Amino acid sequence: MHHSALLGVLILFCSLPRSLGGKLLVVPVDGSHWINMKVLIVELHSKGHDVTVVRGSSSWYIEEHSPLYTSITVDIGEFDDEFMEKFLPSLLKMQRQGRSLWNELALADETYQRFKEIHEQICNMTATMFENETLMNSLKDAEFDVVLTDPAFGGGVLLAHRLGLPLVLNVRWTMYGEAHFDIAPSPLSYIPVTGLQLTDKMTFTQRVMNVMTRLLILYKNSKYFENPYREFTRKYFGPDVSFFSLLQNTDIWLMRNDFTFEFPRPTMPNVVYMGGFQCKPAKPLPDALEEFVQSSGEHGIIVMTLGTVFGQLLSELNDDIAAAFAQLPQKVIWRHTGPPPANLGNNTMIVSWLPQNDLLGHPKTKLFVAHGGTNGVQEAIYHGVPIVGLPLAFDQPDNLSRMRAKGTTKIVDIATMDRNVFLEALKEVLGNTSYRENMKTLSKLHHDQPMKPLDRAMFWIEFVMRNKGAAHLRTQSFRMSWIEYHSVDVILTLID
Amino acid sequence: MHHSALLGVLILFCSLPRSLGGKLLVVPVDGSHWINMKVLIVELHSKGHDVTVVRGSSSWYIEEHSPLYTSITVDIGEFDDEFMEKFLPSLLKMQRQGRSLWNELALADETYQRFKEIHEQICNMTATMFENETLMNSLKDAEFDVVLTDPAFGGGVLLAHRLGLPLVLNVRWTMYGEAHFDIAPSPLSYIPVTGLQLTDKMTFTQRVMNVMTRLLILYKNSKYFENPYREFTRKYFGPDVSFFSLLQNTDIWLMRNDFTFEFPRPTMPNVVYMGGFQCKPAKPLPDALEEFVQSSGEHGIIVMTLGTVFGQLLSELNDDIAAAFAQLPQKVIWRHTGPPPANLGNNTMIVSWLPQNDLLGHPKTKLFVAHGGTNGVQEAIYHGVPIVGLPLAFDQPDNLSRMRAKGTTKIVDIATMDRNVFLEALKEVLGNTSYRENMKTLSKLHHDQPMKPLDRAMFWIEFVMRNKGAAHLRTQSFRMSWIEYHSVDVILTLID
Repeated sequence: MHHSALLGVLILFCSLPRSLGGKLLVVPVDGSHWINMKVLIVELHSKGHDVTVVRGSSSWYIEEHSPLYTSITVDIGEFDDEFMEKFLPSLLKMQRQGRSLWNELALADETYQRFKEIHEQICNMTATMFENETLMNSLKDAEFDVVLTDPAFGGGVLLAHRLGLPLVLNVRWTMYGEAHFDIAPSPLSYIPVTGLQLTDKMTFTQRVMNVMTRLLILYKNSKYFENPYREFTRKYFGPDVSFFSLLQNTDIWLMRNDFTFEFPRPTMPNVVYMGGFQCKPAKPLPDALEEFVQSSGEHGIIVMTLGTVFGQLLSELNDDIAAAFAQLPQKVIWRHTGPPPANLGNNTMIVSWLPQNDLLGHPKTKLFVAHGGTNGVQEAIYHGVPIVGLPLAFDQPDNLSRMRAKGTTKIVDIATMDRNVFLEALKEVLGNTSYRENMKTLSKLHHDQPMKPLDRAMFWIEFVMRNKGAAHLRTQSFRMSWIEYHSVDVILTLID
Repeated sequence: MHHSALLGVLILFCSLPRSLGGKLLVVPVDGSHWINMKVLIVELHSKGHDVTVVRGSSSWYIEEHSPLYTSITVDIGEFDDEFMEKFLPSLLKMQRQGRSLWNELALADETYQRFKEIHEQICNMTATMFENETLMNSLKDAEFDVVLTDPAFGGGVLLAHRLGLPLVLNVRWTMYGEAHFDIAPSPLSYIPVTGLQLTDKMTFTQRVMNVMTRLLILYKNSKYFENPYREFTRKYFGPDVSFFSLLQNTDIWLMRNDFTFEFPRPTMPNVVYMGGFQCKPAKPLPDALEEFVQSSGEHGIIVMTLGTVFGQLLSELNDDIAAAFAQLPQKVIWRHTGPPPANLGNNTMIVSWLPQNDLLGHPKTKLFVAHGGTNGVQEAIYHGVPIVGLPLAFDQPDNLSRMRAKGTTKIVDIATMDRNVFLEALKEVLGNTSYRENMKTLSKLHHDQPMKPLDRAMFWIEFVMRNKGAAHLRTQSFRMSWIEYHSVDVILTLID
């Protein structure tokens, strides 16, 4: 990877005449995060707002030309395309060797180092923009109403501050971890830290683990991620402005979850839950697919996919999965790329892409085999389909452990999985009606809201545009040091 | 007062045929709190729900017979009607002598003792119900969907637990203080304790005061209020159930405020803000009143009222107020009971009752002179009318200090008020346009919500009725001891 190859900025941005709607500057994160952001952009566009998207020159997914938005392409050098390709097989091999995903990967210095490099790249990309006077002047002249960004990386937050614009986040993760931890009080006694697959009911030992892991994460965050941003903010904003304070100063946090997915926990007035905002009623399937689905008869179908990024597992695992499916009376639609697995049954259709939402919403669908990405879990909740989970990395184990705690999901550990283990898991969720009933209840609760999540998100984005922020919903906590916030100085004075 | 005079229960309750709507058991608090509860009952009634109201036999305001609800009257003995009549004059005299309202009244053992007696009375009233098998059986047979109560006193919470029913609170205060403190994390570094008139921006000294006062309140609460409830829960529910745990187990907290009124602070998933739910667009005034209002010409009018309970001040104060009003070009409508004040100007109309909402919503209204009760402040926000505040007791000083912090209100200290001080305050708010502009901004923010507060309240009451509670929005914190919640045991183990 070439971090130094930041050669310039290609500006496709042009000053459009101001429409009746507002003007948004969107700074998205690439990959699966873009899918979510695009849902918001489609809706904003349909409401007559002008959207401008900042994209890196090596973007995987974010199109340069779109009828939905104007784009600004910033050269961020070459991206290591092979990283993700190499990532999953190495991850799977590690687990199959019985090594702990959590200790060796999530908390490994190598992983932190890798993410640090991405953060550095983002800081460099943002600096490239800041240094380009023509670009910055045109951004100022454009008179945006708001910056909408995904703060998994910090570019949008920095840009909003530079332009003096209100800030709305489309968020579940920040560089520090699960986003609530940055903004809301988070008692570690019942709020599990991501990665440990704990619930909101913890034993004493689990609570000790939870506190220790949180401390470790704080230490690693500060060791790896603070530096690139600290250098950046010092250079461009002076010594008194930290990235964290800019993040806490956000007007509205649009959270990609809700309390049918997440455990209930303290929240803040400017946090708006839009979990499931990307979900829609199912549309009819293509004829061939519908025919296959209908051929399942009373047994119904199983849908399997491991998400946007991962098309296949190790071949031994693929073979085991195929063999297990072959023993079931259900029909199976399996998104799989790469060589076809051995042991494939007649009941199993391999596809390289599938209309996930339409399949999950089909009345014949009995079971979802999924890696546990947020989008898939939300769609399963929306349509009320129980899950057999094969968590691979990132937030997936914790997403699935939440679903397991709610009695809707069986998790299969990829480290010890074989065809029998997988088959038993499938049979359990298909045979024990409680999984389906619990997921139907969760689905009912998810739908029982005064407003649709996407409408709620739109309301608050437009609120910020109308009112130039949401200052009356932001607490004073962001102005305080840790010592002041926790009244440590007061307590010491009183004890003294 | 006769606490022992708990002679029996008069049951007017009858089994109505089940309508298409749900069935609610409402346990209100008397006095000004009933005004709020009645707004909810009117709306619930109009939506086709059956409402049953539990009232004390000596109720001041809660009618026994109403087309809106069926009532259950419980004998609570004689109530000391003179208490409130004697209360205000003694309060005012105390302040005029230069004594601190806060130290001598709010924190005085005498006040706590007085409230303890009311809590005992409520526990006795509830016990009377529990001991009446016929009543309790008829309540069980009625198959209510939910208990709706104001937890300033604890009867409704106890009754809900006894009947095994979901619980919705119409709340701003519990017996422990401002309701958020019971349920949401409340960092004392920026959340002012009620009574000190502090804001969310405190100096170090103010933060010390805030923490100390909170500790004092916790101590006094436990000394005075725990006992009657502890005895009650031990007797009827066993040693493992505390009143506080029942309160924390509430399904939905309908809070009578929002963040145009309250400072932004941490909240919880099952807290629903319905501040301003009682407010409505102004209706036309009676002809005589409209004529008087119109006669004010370009100068407009001033509306003064000290709320439901207090009709007048000390006569020296009344005279000063009248003299100050007499010097203004505005017309004044003043709700005043008792002997007419000396110095009354031609511009001032004395009335024993006024249509507060319709007057505040009248375009001629320039200023609201108010004691700072929650209802009046909410109506002032709703209609965008700046305030000159004369806080008398309870939450009024703090309500008004919030409005002052938002630049909408001038507070006059009743201890040192004379006609000149009052006149200057009136002139300042009438003359300095920032008060009006700030209140208009606040009003705009208050109205800029995706749903009207009353509709939101109705949605969540009906949600609880539909779903038999809101368990997925309740955190696990209520199951925990203080030591577990704050991870004190974990920290001690890690330090050890």
